[in-house]
Amino acid sequence: MTGARPPVDVDRYIAETGAAVSAYLATVFPADAQPARLFEAMNYSLLAGGKRIRPILCLAAARSFGVREEDAMPAAAALELVHTYSLIHDDLPAMDDDDLRRGRPTNHRVFGEATALLAGDGLLTEAFALLSQPLNVPPERQLQMIQTLARAAGPYGMVGGQQADMEANRTTGSLDQLAFIHRRKTGMLIQASVVIGGLFAALGPAEREALAAFGIEIGHAFQIVDDWLDVSGDTEALGKQTGADERMQKLTYPSLIGLERTRQLAEERYEAAVSALEAAGIDAPLLTGLAAYVVQRNR
Amino acid sequence: MTGARPPVDVDRYIAETGAAVSAYLATVFPADAQPARLFEAMNYSLLAGGKRIRPILCLAAARSFGVREEDAMPAAAALELVHTYSLIHDDLPAMDDDDLRRGRPTNHRVFGEATALLAGDGLLTEAFALLSQPLNVPPERQLQMIQTLARAAGPYGMVGGQQADMEANRTTGSLDQLAFIHRRKTGMLIQASVVIGGLFAALGPAEREALAAFGIEIGHAFQIVDDWLDVSGDTEALGKQTGADERMQKLTYPSLIGLERTRQLAEERYEAAVSALEAAGIDAPLLTGLAAYVVQRNR
Repeated sequence: MTGARPPVDVDRYIAETGAAVSAYLATVFPADAQPARLFEAMNYSLLAGGKRIRPILCLAAARSFGVREEDAMPAAAALELVHTYSLIHDDLPAMDDDDLRRGRPTNHRVFGEATALLAGDGLLTEAFALLSQPLNVPPERQLQMIQTLARAAGPYGMVGGQQADMEANRTTGSLDQLAFIHRRKTGMLIQASVVIGGLFAALGPAEREALAAFGIEIGHAFQIVDDWLDVSGDTEALGKQTGADERMQKLTYPSLIGLERTRQLAEERYEAAVSALEAAGIDAPLLTGLAAYVVQRNR
Repeated sequence: MTGARPPVDVDRYIAETGAAVSAYLATVFPADAQPARLFEAMNYSLLAGGKRIRPILCLAAARSFGVREEDAMPAAAALELVHTYSLIHDDLPAMDDDDLRRGRPTNHRVFGEATALLAGDGLLTEAFALLSQPLNVPPERQLQMIQTLARAAGPYGMVGGQQADMEANRTTGSLDQLAFIHRRKTGMLIQASVVIGGLFAALGPAEREALAAFGIEIGHAFQIVDDWLDVSGDTEALGKQTGADERMQKLTYPSLIGLERTRQLAEERYEAAVSALEAAGIDAPLLTGLAAYVVQRNR
């Protein structure tokens, strides 16, 4: 510890910030917007009470460099819209064909496939509307935020990861292939959350690079833990059935290297994330605390 | 005519500019991008030889105010990516379940539903990547372009129009309801094409408003003609089967007011579009020529 700064209560920060994010998300779409069923479907998934980990990381990165929560909130919300869209499309019959998400029926089980498809499309597009409205940040940096989000979510990022995941063959898949998938499917959007939060502040190149390195490591850790939880987690805590990867015969870390080594790998990513910040002289206990949460979470 | 300016050859402009747009679109995704099948699926639909009417309108608006084609091309391409994504998702079994598009099998008939879904998602997201890269335009105006595209394509625009179209009941539907659907489903993205082209130039509020009014009128005309062509058009010229609206029992202008009045309505929208430019003192023969093309086209 340097000086008298009190230790950060990460659990409390997550609870309070998550609640603030959820409250903001509830205001994104006006109550009387038409067509009503489309907005109902978008809100059904958006307000289903996820962990809000991406917005929290964005706000934490911004706050670590002195940016007010209210300034960064529209960007934080945009990240959750993109995440929510990906879940809706991922659950569709043509993809994973899931019935349950966050303890409730999936979007298409409630609203039908066509509306669920459009709800996903609408959330993705609205994310870019949120991020391109006038914000309290220089426009050059705002454009960089949009570029970061589009690259992380698009064919070179999340969408490409979904495709690669779908194509992956468990019997011939390698660790390299799995790293390609995980980095794109989950890692880049989590990295983008941290990077976009940092773009609200006037940082130098070394700080930006450190944040990007931190982000990719915790993104990797997040997906490794996801794989681990699908085998060892608790269905009730997760709000979805465990063992789905096994049933779908997905290429995962436990299937390639076993449970114990998977756990170790997550810890190693955590250490690398913390080191990236330290090496750049960034003292951000909030971010390192969140990195620990990502590795230790049970849902 | 004012002075000695030669008449604009709109057909030639459309042919040449459409070819330039197609050539640019072929460079958007690098040949070796992974996962290969996702990029193949995106290019399959993107390079299927559409009319390129949205990019052409964008480039024509920019050129009418002295902007070079190469400066506006990435924005023009972004509009075509969004249009192409909407076609892929619209053709999916959960939506219109179409087998044929532009004379070829639809995306999901070739690549399967899951990849087609992701190809659509990827094209939509990449559009915002194209539009947020460094462009030769002040960043404030570039942010306005992104905002314009997101609003036109999202739940308040195209996605909302698709939902409303799906819900529309032919027996109880009204002209007001049809106008709501058409404005969102097609009109706003066509309007955005003109508005975004204009944003490359430093225009005053009156000129911007006139361009927006011109855009919404030709967008309306475009969809009216689409309805008309589905009844009176030629399957070979269209590259898709006519009569689809009738089979799907869609709410359309011909079903509400008959063929002749539908044709008249398109002409009225054309007149209103031209008047909007004239009232603001904008002399843009390229734009009025394109408006005429939109109303007179046979595909």
